[in-house]
Amino acid sequence: MPLWFRRHRNYDEDNSWACGNWFEFLLVVSLAIVLLVGSLVLVLFWVMQYREGFAWTENPAKEFNLHPVLMVAGFITFSGFSMLLYRIGRCCRRIYVKLFHTIFHALAVPCVVVGFIAVLDYHNLSQPPIRNFYSLHSWMGFVTMGLFALQFVVGFFSFLILLCCENATAGCRASLVPIHATFGILTFMLAVATCLTGLTEKAVFSLGNYYSYMMDEAIVINALAMTLVGSAIVMGYFLLREGFRYSGHILVSVQSEM
Amino acid sequence: MPLWFRRHRNYDEDNSWACGNWFEFLLVVSLAIVLLVGSLVLVLFWVMQYREGFAWTENPAKEFNLHPVLMVAGFITFSGFSMLLYRIGRCCRRIYVKLFHTIFHALAVPCVVVGFIAVLDYHNLSQPPIRNFYSLHSWMGFVTMGLFALQFVVGFFSFLILLCCENATAGCRASLVPIHATFGILTFMLAVATCLTGLTEKAVFSLGNYYSYMMDEAIVINALAMTLVGSAIVMGYFLLREGFRYSGHILVSVQSEM
Repeated sequence: MPLWFRRHRNYDEDNSWACGNWFEFLLVVSLAIVLLVGSLVLVLFWVMQYREGFAWTENPAKEFNLHPVLMVAGFITFSGFSMLLYRIGRCCRRIYVKLFHTIFHALAVPCVVVGFIAVLDYHNLSQPPIRNFYSLHSWMGFVTMGLFALQFVVGFFSFLILLCCENATAGCRASLVPIHATFGILTFMLAVATCLTGLTEKAVFSLGNYYSYMMDEAIVINALAMTLVGSAIVMGYFLLREGFRYSGHILVSVQSEM
Repeated sequence: MPLWFRRHRNYDEDNSWACGNWFEFLLVVSLAIVLLVGSLVLVLFWVMQYREGFAWTENPAKEFNLHPVLMVAGFITFSGFSMLLYRIGRCCRRIYVKLFHTIFHALAVPCVVVGFIAVLDYHNLSQPPIRNFYSLHSWMGFVTMGLFALQFVVGFFSFLILLCCENATAGCRASLVPIHATFGILTFMLAVATCLTGLTEKAVFSLGNYYSYMMDEAIVINALAMTLVGSAIVMGYFLLREGFRYSGHILVSVQSEM
C-alpha cells in the first residue's frame, strides 16, 4: 500500500472484521444513536407538553425547564455522541477522530453551564427562595461536573500537546488513554444516575401522590428514565466490548516530502 | 516448578507486577472494601437511628426498613465483594476463585428476595395501600433484578458445566467471559443508580421540605448516597483497569497420577 494512502486511512489487518462483527457493531451503534437522540426528544417533549416550555429569569418556574433539557443534551446526547464517534471512526485518521471527539465534548460545556445557571436562578428567584445544594441529586451533580471538567481539561491539553509535539509526548499520551477512557465511561454512568435522581425528585415534588396514578406525565417521565437506563446499558456494552476497540497504534508522523 | 505445585498456584511471569502496581492494587482494593462495607454500615445506621429499626408484617412501616438494608447488602456489598474477589484471587486456583464468586453472589439472592417481599408487604399492608410499580425506581429495580438473575443463571450454569465437562466447554465458556464481565459491571452500576433513586424518593417523601434544612438524617442519607457513588467509581476503575485483569489461561486438567 502506498505511503500517502496509509497516512490517511488505516486499513490494517488487525482491525478488520468478519461480517457478523459488522452486523453487531452496526446494530449496537444504531441502538445507541436512537437512545441518545431519544432521551433528548423525550425530555423536550415532557417539558413542552407538561411543564409549559421555556423562559428566562422573568419566569423562574419555566427557567427551571432549561435545566433537565440542557443537562440531558450536554451530559447524555453530546457526550454520548462524542464517545460513540471515537469508536465509530475506525478507518479515519485518528487526529480527525480526536478533533470531533473534542468538538462534541466542547458543545456539551455551554449546555452544562447554562443548565446549571438555570437551576440556580430558579432556586434563588422563587418566592420564597429554595435552598441550594441540599439534595443528593445536587451533590451527585457536583461530582459529575467535577469529573467532566477534569476529563475535559486532561483530554484537551493532551490533544493540544499532540498538535504541538506529537512524537515527544506519545508515551505519556498513550499511558493516559486507558485512564481517560475508564473515567469517561464512569462519568457517563454517573451523569445518567444523576439525571435519574433528578427525574425522581421532580416527579415526586411535582406530581406528589398523583405519581402513583400513572397519568400521562408519569409515564413520559418513566419512559425518559428507561431511555436513559437503556443508553447506559447500550453505551456501556459498546464501549467495554473488547472487539469494538480500535487496537491503537501510536502514530509517528513521517517527516518526508514524498 | 514441580507440576503438583503449579496445579495449585499460578505464579506465571505474565501476571507478575512491579512494586508500584501492587501499591495501586492494594490501595484501590482497600478503598473498595471500605466503601462497600461503609455503604452497609451507613444504611444500617440510618435505619436504626432515624427510622426505628426493623419489624415484619405486624408493622409495615418498619418492615419497609428491611428493603434498603437488604438491597444494599445484596446488590452492593455481597455483589461488590464477589466481583472484587474474582480480581483479587490472582494466585489461587481459578476453580476456587469461581466457587467463592458464585457463593458471594448466591448470598445476595436471599437478600434481594426478602428485600423485594418487604417493600411489597409495606405497600399492600399500609392503610390505605400504596400502589406498586409506578415509580421509575421500581421500573429500574425490575431491570436490575432481571439483569442480575440473567447473569446469575448464565454464570451458575457455565460454572456447573465447568465442573462436569471442563475441556469440552472451554471455548464456549471463554467466549462468555467478556460478556459476563461487561454485564456484571453494568448490573452493579445500575444497582447503584437504582439505590440512589430509591434514597431520593425516601428522602423527599419522608423529609419533604425539611430535606432542604439539612438535618442530621438528610446528611446521613446524602453521605450514604456519596458512599454508593464512591463505590461505583472505585469498583468501576478497579474492574476496568486493564492491568488488574488476570490474563486468563484456559486450564486444561492433566489426567495423570503423578
